[in-house]
Amino acid sequence: MATIIDVAERAGVSVATVSRMMNNPEVVSEKTTKKIHKAMEELRYQPNAVARALQQKKSNIIGLVLPFIDYAFFSRLTDAVEEYCHAHGYKLMLCKSGEHQEREQEMFSILQANKVDGILVCSRFGDASFLKDYEFPVVSIEREIEGIPSVMADDYYGGCLAANELIAAGSKNPVILGSQVPDYLPGTKRIEGFCNECSKHGITANFCMIENDSMGKKVLENTFYEYMEKNPEIDGVFCMGDMIAAQIFTCERAYATNLYHKIPIVGFDGFEISEWMQLSTIFQPIREMGECAVDMLIKKIEGKIAPQRLVLPVNLIKRESTLRFQ
Amino acid sequence: MATIIDVAERAGVSVATVSRMMNNPEVVSEKTTKKIHKAMEELRYQPNAVARALQQKKSNIIGLVLPFIDYAFFSRLTDAVEEYCHAHGYKLMLCKSGEHQEREQEMFSILQANKVDGILVCSRFGDASFLKDYEFPVVSIEREIEGIPSVMADDYYGGCLAANELIAAGSKNPVILGSQVPDYLPGTKRIEGFCNECSKHGITANFCMIENDSMGKKVLENTFYEYMEKNPEIDGVFCMGDMIAAQIFTCERAYATNLYHKIPIVGFDGFEISEWMQLSTIFQPIREMGECAVDMLIKKIEGKIAPQRLVLPVNLIKRESTLRFQ
Repeated sequence: MATIIDVAERAGVSVATVSRMMNNPEVVSEKTTKKIHKAMEELRYQPNAVARALQQKKSNIIGLVLPFIDYAFFSRLTDAVEEYCHAHGYKLMLCKSGEHQEREQEMFSILQANKVDGILVCSRFGDASFLKDYEFPVVSIEREIEGIPSVMADDYYGGCLAANELIAAGSKNPVILGSQVPDYLPGTKRIEGFCNECSKHGITANFCMIENDSMGKKVLENTFYEYMEKNPEIDGVFCMGDMIAAQIFTCERAYATNLYHKIPIVGFDGFEISEWMQLSTIFQPIREMGECAVDMLIKKIEGKIAPQRLVLPVNLIKRESTLRFQ
Repeated sequence: MATIIDVAERAGVSVATVSRMMNNPEVVSEKTTKKIHKAMEELRYQPNAVARALQQKKSNIIGLVLPFIDYAFFSRLTDAVEEYCHAHGYKLMLCKSGEHQEREQEMFSILQANKVDGILVCSRFGDASFLKDYEFPVVSIEREIEGIPSVMADDYYGGCLAANELIAAGSKNPVILGSQVPDYLPGTKRIEGFCNECSKHGITANFCMIENDSMGKKVLENTFYEYMEKNPEIDGVFCMGDMIAAQIFTCERAYATNLYHKIPIVGFDGFEISEWMQLSTIFQPIREMGECAVDMLIKKIEGKIAPQRLVLPVNLIKRESTLRFQ
């Protein structure tokens, strides 16, 4: 494969001139530029992105660190981030932290050694202060971290919308079904919004919470249906994620009890399965969250002013799971 | 940040010696190695992965090119590929081709310019001959391409297993529900296996196929339920993917017709939703496909002998959707 040296030789100029033309084209004469371009074409020269990264101290690579990829929120986010990066001339290096704090830090070190221009992260650990120690910009998604720019959905308002929708469907004893998450993750805000909105209507929200570690289809199903048997007064369910609703209401017990049709249900996320199930849900714009995060990161990389905190709106999608009661 | 020059100075050796120690440690004396390590620690030296890539002509980066990421098969594959790459000292650069041939080729050029050591690809286009033109190794996933090593699931046998399971559940007029895919994609083999196995039992398989371009929840639902109304003799459904089954059998019409409980159904893939729905399905080992593909690629990169064609087994998971008829 042709190198920059071959190009210089063929064009009859110095290697430094070729390099200058590639990095600061405005300082090279038009005549010389033409000669070099001709040589490049004849030799089918492909600039070496790695060498240019070293030269320019810019790799045009963005790192994305996620707890896992194999989950609808993260795969949609990754899809949007890749697309937006590509459209703006950046490549994506993808790292999975697997919900281990050491691995999250290790991924940052690896990305740093690979001279990424910046990192997007969905951090999952209490102590995220290490994120501030890097020379390159970092943008946090789905979590606010002091000193780090962040992109969020309006989870609190999403909780309010869910409460209002269940109340409008006649619910006076709603239950929140979900997993116990740390305070800094978005679930907490959803619960707050839901409970506060209920309070405004003189209603007290109930809880059916599963420990995050023991979360799994069987545990979730058994916990929920046992809870519903013991608490026959429950007349509405707010599932903290569409995937929770999908697990609870596509199973044999859902058919057997017909619970899905007897009381109003609201989900959260707006995944496709909510459409399949005709589940009313709070839609959060995951693709746009990814796009905004890349946009903020690129602005930071390029030394421009970027938002420090950006909250995207959520909205209620009304479907049969609540409409049939209204 | 300390450079290799600072390390050489502090250790009192030449830059070439430090470089040699990093790339071919066996040629440097133990005494010198110790001196260099000490200097590195004192200076908190972090090797520059980009510079090393240039030096060693090896970046330890693997590219993964997928049509999209936001779909269960590809997000699971990506998750497994990232994990396996990391465990073997490689980083993952992720590219989405978005089902455009030009973009697939463009992604290869970008990855080439970034000096990846090799590429894994789920290619979606008739003419994939360009894949052979690269200097670095390429491994194809889910598709056989002449001259390119490939990792496949045993789709043909999966089709046979699905047919057998429906027949064992009493089906004499089964239908295949799916989208029309090009010959080189795995769906074709699934259909072949299904039809041939039916023939062995003197049964003719029926087809309810949706054009790939117009595939979407509403079209799928309408096409299927209209087909079933017009063909009341149908007594078994083979969904070519679990996601097709999920779209058809979680909707209001599924509840209204109770079709899911009236006739045996078999899916394909083994996604979580098949467990939630108690859907019998043909499980394909997606994670292992990703791992094997990375393993083959690394062997190729390192100049070792790697399989040219690798087919992973599929297996039937029996659940209520067929068990209730047996």
